[in-house]
Formats: sequence, structure tokens, C-alpha cells
Amino acid sequence: MATIKEVAKAAGVSVATVSRVMNQNGYVHEDTRRKVEDAIRELNYTPNEVARSLYKRKSKLIGLLLPDITNPYFPQLARGVEDRLQEQDFRLIFGNSDESRQKETDYLQTFLQNNVVGVISSTNAPDHDMYTGLGIPVVFLDRTLNDNPAVYADGREGGRQAATELVKRGSTNITIIQGPADVRPAMDRFHGAVEALESSGTSYEVLKTTSFSFTEAEGWAKELFRRYPDSDGIIASNDIVASAVLQEAVGLGRRVPQDVQIIGFDDIPLSRLLIPSLSTIHQPAYEMGREAADLIIRLIEGQYIESRHIQYAVEFIERQTTRKVES
Amino acid sequence: MATIKEVAKAAGVSVATVSRVMNQNGYVHEDTRRKVEDAIRELNYTPNEVARSLYKRKSKLIGLLLPDITNPYFPQLARGVEDRLQEQDFRLIFGNSDESRQKETDYLQTFLQNNVVGVISSTNAPDHDMYTGLGIPVVFLDRTLNDNPAVYADGREGGRQAATELVKRGSTNITIIQGPADVRPAMDRFHGAVEALESSGTSYEVLKTTSFSFTEAEGWAKELFRRYPDSDGIIASNDIVASAVLQEAVGLGRRVPQDVQIIGFDDIPLSRLLIPSLSTIHQPAYEMGREAADLIIRLIEGQYIESRHIQYAVEFIERQTTRKVES
Repeated sequence: MATIKEVAKAAGVSVATVSRVMNQNGYVHEDTRRKVEDAIRELNYTPNEVARSLYKRKSKLIGLLLPDITNPYFPQLARGVEDRLQEQDFRLIFGNSDESRQKETDYLQTFLQNNVVGVISSTNAPDHDMYTGLGIPVVFLDRTLNDNPAVYADGREGGRQAATELVKRGSTNITIIQGPADVRPAMDRFHGAVEALESSGTSYEVLKTTSFSFTEAEGWAKELFRRYPDSDGIIASNDIVASAVLQEAVGLGRRVPQDVQIIGFDDIPLSRLLIPSLSTIHQPAYEMGREAADLIIRLIEGQYIESRHIQYAVEFIERQTTRKVES
Repeated sequence: MATIKEVAKAAGVSVATVSRVMNQNGYVHEDTRRKVEDAIRELNYTPNEVARSLYKRKSKLIGLLLPDITNPYFPQLARGVEDRLQEQDFRLIFGNSDESRQKETDYLQTFLQNNVVGVISSTNAPDHDMYTGLGIPVVFLDRTLNDNPAVYADGREGGRQAATELVKRGSTNITIIQGPADVRPAMDRFHGAVEALESSGTSYEVLKTTSFSFTEAEGWAKELFRRYPDSDGIIASNDIVASAVLQEAVGLGRRVPQDVQIIGFDDIPLSRLLIPSLSTIHQPAYEMGREAADLIIRLIEGQYIESRHIQYAVEFIERQTTRKVES
């Protein structure tokens, strides 16, 4: 394999000049540049990936920031992102932000230091400096703000659907479990549900929660039935929380869905394996991940982009924790 | 911020020489090298991370290869790895291998091109050339071979425990669901279970399966009760498959655990949210991930390592899909 020295010799210039051409750094006469580029081609000189990333100022690395890969919704997103990137030989640097501004900033900095050419982020702070000043393409995934490039599902409509389906199936005393206040999609769903319940005149309670953690969900499920024992319909903040509510309801001897209906959000793979299986609002997580990867690739490559702002529809999945509609 | 040109000027050498010193590439007289290094220090010259990785021949990137992040066992491992790496400012390049030799080779190549300084891999081919010739530290995670650096759980003992606990609780006609034949930990568990059932003289059947996928698990669960309707104890290949079996059993009107006991493997977070909650063999996935990250860091930094081969104990978690032992 050719070395930079051989390239310099063939072009009749110094190694420093070859390096300047490769780095696009400092003045090089147009003729000299052409000679160097010809020599690179002739000798089939391929610097390693890092040198090449200096040369082209482009790596094939994309940074992906997700809140927490152990929340079963995110592996689907991540898998979609990775599958699409892999098809185009892009690679993923991955970090969990834990919804912490500090961790997010730290990760973005090291992403840049590692010369990522684009970032996909599920952030709650899309308008923060750390994104606006990043200088490389960013796609927000599962989050959105103004007309920044983003791929997300219609959470508000999801919340409306969840409420509407419970009301349609006879719940008259609903409890909404409100997800973390700083997680935008959680708040979208919550507002959607409130909107639908208000407009149908259904009475409801709200239980505020601060995370989607498995362990905490069990505590909230207990609190829910202690504070609102008459609930006959529960709109959970996601499927994990719905599973905990379902388990608590069964443990208390409530019949699901006869005494209390439960509806989740996300449609994670395990929701259909629960007994009774969980009715929920489906988000096409894998497809959203793929689409975000596709969008970042097109942004990086400067391709024509019809829409930088891709909203996915959500869908009610009827399983066994909701009653059948009377026909 | 200082440029490479200023460093060259201060050291009284050419840019090419500074570059040679930084790249540790080509002959540089010891005195010259010292002059350049002094100039770098004096001017506080900090090349960007990519240049620095050329300089030191060290990046802070670690490659992580897992079979499939959407299998709920792996996010725990990945999270453990990432948390530990993050504490030391290492970053993760991540890929799903789908247990495919080809994808694995492709990923390893691009990991190298991106100058990773170590690899953590859950591979079924630890003895393959692609690892033995990698030239950087490798830690096998959830897999092991000879005395290569590895972090894994005692799968064989896990299989033995699963079988022993079912027999102790009165199952006399057990079906073992054998996981994919090319996934070593799956085979370890299987052999462990067979060993314990043989030595206790318990009669058993084997249902062979080829993946841990949610969708396929539902099919195998149906097949199991069709082929072996008299099973009164099921040792599932993991918790996902156990969930599918549980759902099918309940759907067929079997009482769990009175008519049929079910035991899983892994102890993924959702196993305790099932109804009835799933008895299983716990693997400390998060801790194993952290330990693998810790081991790779120590290998990279050339630290003293007491044991490169870390086996974690597994533990029977008694929940509601197994009967209580008569005391």
C-alpha cells in the first residue's frame, strides 16, 4: 500500500504539502493541488479511516442520544436507526442521556471530538444552545420543535385516542397517569387525553409521576388504587406503567377489563404477552428510527429533502384490557 | 489556539517533522523529537480528537457488539457497559450482529477503521480469526472461551438450578425448550438442565427452537402444548419464551403453577410484571456489563489484572409460576 511519502515523491512536493491538500488547510496552488490529487489517485493511496476523516473532514460516525436504552421503547428506535445506518456504512456512537442536560452536553461534546457528521437525539431541550450551535446536521427523534428536522409520533392524538376508546367502552371515572413533566411526548399524550375527556364531559383524576422506571411504576400503581379506588378506567403514561397497574389491579381482585379498563402507550413487544394482553396506543418505533437515520443521511449528503419534519400516526391496538364495544 | 505550523516554527522544524513525531511514523532524531514535544507542550497545542488519536494512536472509543438490542436482556448489559465507560470518558460505537458472522466481521472492520482501542463482544465465535488477529484488547461478554478475557454468568449451573427447582416442586414430566444451537450460553443452560434431570431420573422432552424472537416464541408455545400436552413443568430458554408459554398455558385453561410450572431465564425487568409473575434464573446483566467495561479499560491501560475471566453466579428467583416447596 502506498504511503504519504510516496505520494509526495510522485507529485514532486513535500509531505507537508500532501498533508495540506488532504486537510484542506493552508494555501496550496491549484496546479500543485491537482498534482497531489492525481498522485493520490494513481498510487491508489488510501489513508486509514481517521486520516481520511481529516482529509474529507467527514467520518461515517453518527451520534445517537437516547434517554435510557433499558426503557423497552428505545431499543426498537435504536435498532431502526442502526439498521438503516448500516445499509449506508454509517456507524453509531451511542449514549444514554437519562434526560439530564449535563450528560447530554457532555455526550455532544465528545461526539464532536470524535468527528461525528450528524446527531440523532431524543432530547427535551431541542431549542438549547448545545443543539443550535452544533454546526452539523441534527435530527430530533421522538421529539420535535418548530421546523427542525424531526421524526416523531402524534402523541397528542394518541392521548385523545386512549381517552376516547375508554369512554366509548363505558369508563366514566378515569384516572390519567401523567408522565414526567419534562418529557415532551409524555405531556403531549397527557394533554390529548385531558382534551378528549373534557370535551366528552367525563370525570377524571390525574396522578402525577416522574419517570418510566419499572421499580417506581409499582409504587405508583399502589398509590393510584389507594387514592382513586373508584377508577374504572386507567390511561397509563406508557406500557411499563400500564403493566404495573394491571398487576396491582389483579392483585387487588379487580377484574380487568370488567371492573377497570387499562390502556398503555407505545406497544412495546411484551405488551401482547401480558395476561390479559394489554390494549395500547401503537407507535411505529422501529420505522421511526429508520426514518430518522434516513433523514440524517440525506441531510449529511446534502440531498434534496421534501420534508424535514415527519410525523407518524399512532394507532389504537385493541387487546384484552379494554372491553369490546357494543355493536 | 496554536496550530501545527506554529509548533513547527517554535521547534525550528518543518510541519512534516511535527506530523512525523505526532504520528510516530518515520525516522525523527531523538533531539528533534524532544524539541517538537517541548514546543507542543509550550504552546499548549491540542490537536482535535481525531488528530490526537493519530498522535497517541489512541482514541477513547470502544466497540460493542451485541446480538440484538431489542432482546430485553441486552439493554441491561449495554447500559452497564456504557455507564462504566462514561465514568472514564470512553465512548461506545455500537452494532447488532444478529448472530451473523458476516455482520460481525463487517462491524469489527469498521470499528478498527474508526480507531477503537478495545472491543467488547457477545459473539458465538470467540475463537474466530477476526478476534484472534484483532491486535487490540477484546473482552467477551456473556460468552467465554479458554482463558480469553471474559465476563459471563454460569449458564450450566443456571440450567441445573432451573431443573432442580421444578423437580423439587413436584414436576415429573418436564419439557425443556432448547434455545438456538449456535448460541453458547443457551446450550450451556440446556446441558445443565439435561444433566440435572438425568441425574434425578425425571422424564423429559426437548423442544428445539432457533431464536429468542417474541413473534416466533408464540408459535413455539403452541407447538409445545400440541406435541407434549402432558408437560407439567417447562424450562424455557429465556424469559421472553417463558412469557409466551405462560400466555399459551393460560389461554388453554391450564392453571399455573398448579397444573404446569414454568421457569424462565435472565430475569428481565418485565418478568416480575407478568401475571402470574415469572419464576426465573437471575443473571446480573447490568453488573456484568459494568464489569466487562471495567476489564476492557484495565486491559487498554495496561493495568495489573488479577482475573481476566470473571464468572458471575446465577440465582433462582421464586415468583408465582412455580409452586411453593412443602416445608
